[in-house]
Amino acid sequence: MTIRVGVLGARGKVGQAICAAVEAATDLELVAAVDKDDSLEAFTEVNTQVVVDFTHPDVVMGNLKFLVERGIHAVVGTTGFDAARLDEVRGWLAERPETGVLIAPNFAIGAVLSMRFAEQAARFFESVEVIELHHPNKADAPSGTAYRTAGLIAAARERAGVGRSPDATSTELEGARGADVEGVRVHSVRLAGLVAHQEVLFGTQGETLTIRHDSIDRNSFAPGVLLGVREIAARPGLTVGLDPLLDL
Amino acid sequence: MTIRVGVLGARGKVGQAICAAVEAATDLELVAAVDKDDSLEAFTEVNTQVVVDFTHPDVVMGNLKFLVERGIHAVVGTTGFDAARLDEVRGWLAERPETGVLIAPNFAIGAVLSMRFAEQAARFFESVEVIELHHPNKADAPSGTAYRTAGLIAAARERAGVGRSPDATSTELEGARGADVEGVRVHSVRLAGLVAHQEVLFGTQGETLTIRHDSIDRNSFAPGVLLGVREIAARPGLTVGLDPLLDL
Amino acid sequence: MTIRVGVLGARGKVGQAICAAVEAATDLELVAAVDKDDSLEAFTEVNTQVVVDFTHPDVVMGNLKFLVERGIHAVVGTTGFDAARLDEVRGWLAERPETGVLIAPNFAIGAVLSMRFAEQAARFFESVEVIELHHPNKADAPSGTAYRTAGLIAAARERAGVGRSPDATSTELEGARGADVEGVRVHSVRLAGLVAHQEVLFGTQGETLTIRHDSIDRNSFAPGVLLGVREIAARPGLTVGLDPLLDL
Amino acid sequence: MTIRVGVLGARGKVGQAICAAVEAATDLELVAAVDKDDSLEAFTEVNTQVVVDFTHPDVVMGNLKFLVERGIHAVVGTTGFDAARLDEVRGWLAERPETGVLIAPNFAIGAVLSMRFAEQAARFFESVEVIELHHPNKADAPSGTAYRTAGLIAAARERAGVGRSPDATSTELEGARGADVEGVRVHSVRLAGLVAHQEVLFGTQGETLTIRHDSIDRNSFAPGVLLGVREIAARPGLTVGLDPLLDL
Repeated sequence: MTIRVGVLGARGKVGQAICAAVEAATDLELVAAVDKDDSLEAFTEVNTQVVVDFTHPDVVMGNLKFLVERGIHAVVGTTGFDAARLDEVRGWLAERPETGVLIAPNFAIGAVLSMRFAEQAARFFESVEVIELHHPNKADAPSGTAYRTAGLIAAARERAGVGRSPDATSTELEGARGADVEGVRVHSVRLAGLVAHQEVLFGTQGETLTIRHDSIDRNSFAPGVLLGVREIAARPGLTVGLDPLLDL
Repeated sequence: MTIRVGVLGARGKVGQAICAAVEAATDLELVAAVDKDDSLEAFTEVNTQVVVDFTHPDVVMGNLKFLVERGIHAVVGTTGFDAARLDEVRGWLAERPETGVLIAPNFAIGAVLSMRFAEQAARFFESVEVIELHHPNKADAPSGTAYRTAGLIAAARERAGVGRSPDATSTELEGARGADVEGVRVHSVRLAGLVAHQEVLFGTQGETLTIRHDSIDRNSFAPGVLLGVREIAARPGLTVGLDPLLDL
Repeated sequence: MTIRVGVLGARGKVGQAICAAVEAATDLELVAAVDKDDSLEAFTEVNTQVVVDFTHPDVVMGNLKFLVERGIHAVVGTTGFDAARLDEVRGWLAERPETGVLIAPNFAIGAVLSMRFAEQAARFFESVEVIELHHPNKADAPSGTAYRTAGLIAAARERAGVGRSPDATSTELEGARGADVEGVRVHSVRLAGLVAHQEVLFGTQGETLTIRHDSIDRNSFAPGVLLGVREIAARPGLTVGLDPLLDL
Repeated sequence: MTIRVGVLGARGKVGQAICAAVEAATDLELVAAVDKDDSLEAFTEVNTQVVVDFTHPDVVMGNLKFLVERGIHAVVGTTGFDAARLDEVRGWLAERPETGVLIAPNFAIGAVLSMRFAEQAARFFESVEVIELHHPNKADAPSGTAYRTAGLIAAARERAGVGRSPDATSTELEGARGADVEGVRVHSVRLAGLVAHQEVLFGTQGETLTIRHDSIDRNSFAPGVLLGVREIAARPGLTVGLDPLLDL
């Protein structure tokens, strides 16, 4: 039996890509594509089981309240969830304990897995550095993902009592050794022809382990969203981040 | 307090490297270095707590029996353990339930981690291929590690109901698409200037994840052996493979 | 002073990208955008200096004859040029010796450079192998570029008296060692999430040199086309392939 | 016919490796292995044609004078040659115009080729950055090779009128964007398990070209030295650097 899926924000660029991905999946059925001028009732009229919401921080809370009250599961990529908003969602879910809501800042499975693997590997190697590579129009360096990755690595090493990576540098041209994010060196490359890439390098005596993620397409969130759609009914309550669904 | 460590096969190439690594570690003390003409009593005389055995299939069972009977923990890299041998070791350990024995075919932490990560990632991607790269004097293609990696990936995908990687190839020059190991394509590169390297490539819409392991030194087993030495006292009974010690 | 540029096939996907690239370049001026229902006279009316032709084998010869007779330089990416067609173009150019025509099968500068570098490096290394990686919808393996690259490498090694790459493989699972293209091993990876990539690996004692080209966008021909537009006036007669313009 | 080769500094680590490489080559014959307590006459007694000198700045000038005066060709890896020393060698060679001397700071063919290719590619791409990766005991960052590579790239771009690589970074954690070497960003990674590696990344719309050199062995100079031994007789006078012998 197929899952009956609705999409909110269906005419946006991301929403269109999700509609296409749902339609291409043989185990999912797209039953309602709703955008800002449409009524949310469209979902209840066709017995929607899961709704995907990639809309806007201004409207997402209203959407979620509507869905949870009607026992419709939700997979949410909209940004802007702080602790207060997450608590509010948990409050609604307490009234409808069989309903599941997944809120995730990043649906690119490859990105989520590389952060997880980097965290797991962190304490087994003397050395670690991060290189992130992006198109030259990016305003911030390092990238948000590199900050998060370095933070996870640093915390894992601290928990295991592993010290800083060895480094005998005594003469450095300013900036050569990268930025220091909680003790982990991070290098940011900006190059025409790239999109979004990251490499985590681990090293110990005689061997290195490299975890590399390449994203060349804005649609790389689609497989992660579909995973959420398929799994959320089995996970009542609030799930934050894609990690728990990966069952690693 | 330091751990009192003995080494068996101490004058071999691998044994020498292990002795050096133990001596370099501040939390370990090398108390006995034994080779084939020496008596195993050397270990008991100095209250050895853990013995590392990189010897030969012909003598390793005698070594292990001696050690287990005396409650000395063992970390074993010697090859040739089949199910019957492992059962025999389990029998000895039943008599000395507080003693721990670790037997592992591969102590390179990077290799062990990359296999584990590859297995974990396998079901989240449409496509997967393995490229292994070695020096040109290697006799077999693919490498044993590539066979094992592809086997783990194939099993994980089958458990999750993921089909074969998509492939529209209709015109192929013989061999271009690599070897088929349980449905996973494996490519073997042989090149002067290389030692032992492996890349597992995963891909789905718009993104790829690459796990690469490079080993350029025969001493890359040392960090894994030291991990075993430090952990084995806390793991009574028989442990096979380094994985359980990694606590992933 | 800017160069006055016309585009033939201007409403096609490639043609649109070229029009946009010309308009974005400060030293070029787009003076005529012509497609199949338009008259070629549009070029002469506005004193076009160089015309870019990405049209169809059925019409390109007529286009070129028109342009050469009027002394308009041409940069041609249309396919289907065999020796007979090239000779015919040379015949027209003999009448207008100040006019330049560039006909190239590949305008991606990175691809052209990597083939050239691979050819130059070929004779200095004991070992060489080629890995090409593409999206899984590709029908042929190896790719045309990999065939050409391996052929150039093989010829360069033969001229220099360099033998085959060393290879001690005695046990091979069928296909593991790739395809044999004129004595050079070529491996073809097909993976979702990739577009078009190629790696040439050279190795000798203790060192390797890798030349990698990644193409993730159909517009990667644009910089090569603009290079042709800027240089062709200084190169009267027929030029085949982008290489001569690179002045390596 | 084989070339009769002598080695100066034959008992040093490098000298031993060169003796072994000469003996392994079927077209070369090792006729004299000389070290500091031996007489240079050993070379003349056995009609040595080419001498390889990896000794010390304090003795190399005396060695070279002796060899040139006797018409013996020399291949020199000893350091410490400034303009004055090179002029002195040229003076000796003026008296023996049929004799050839090659003095090179770097005999790793892969390193020499990657610098050359980087210089050739530099003007065809909007963007370029350099990543060099070394073992953590290295004192300086960036490496000398990275400085030289960036300098060659910068000069080639300036000659061609190519501006700086585009970069929209407005928020940077100090050091993230690397060091600025003549306008080229250089990143220095220091990691256990590495030896000496460098990657030059070029990018333009939709495509990137990467030139990577990996050196994992101190003997990676051997193929370059043998190339010098084979070619120097055909190149009378002074040759500085391996480049001219590569005939690119």
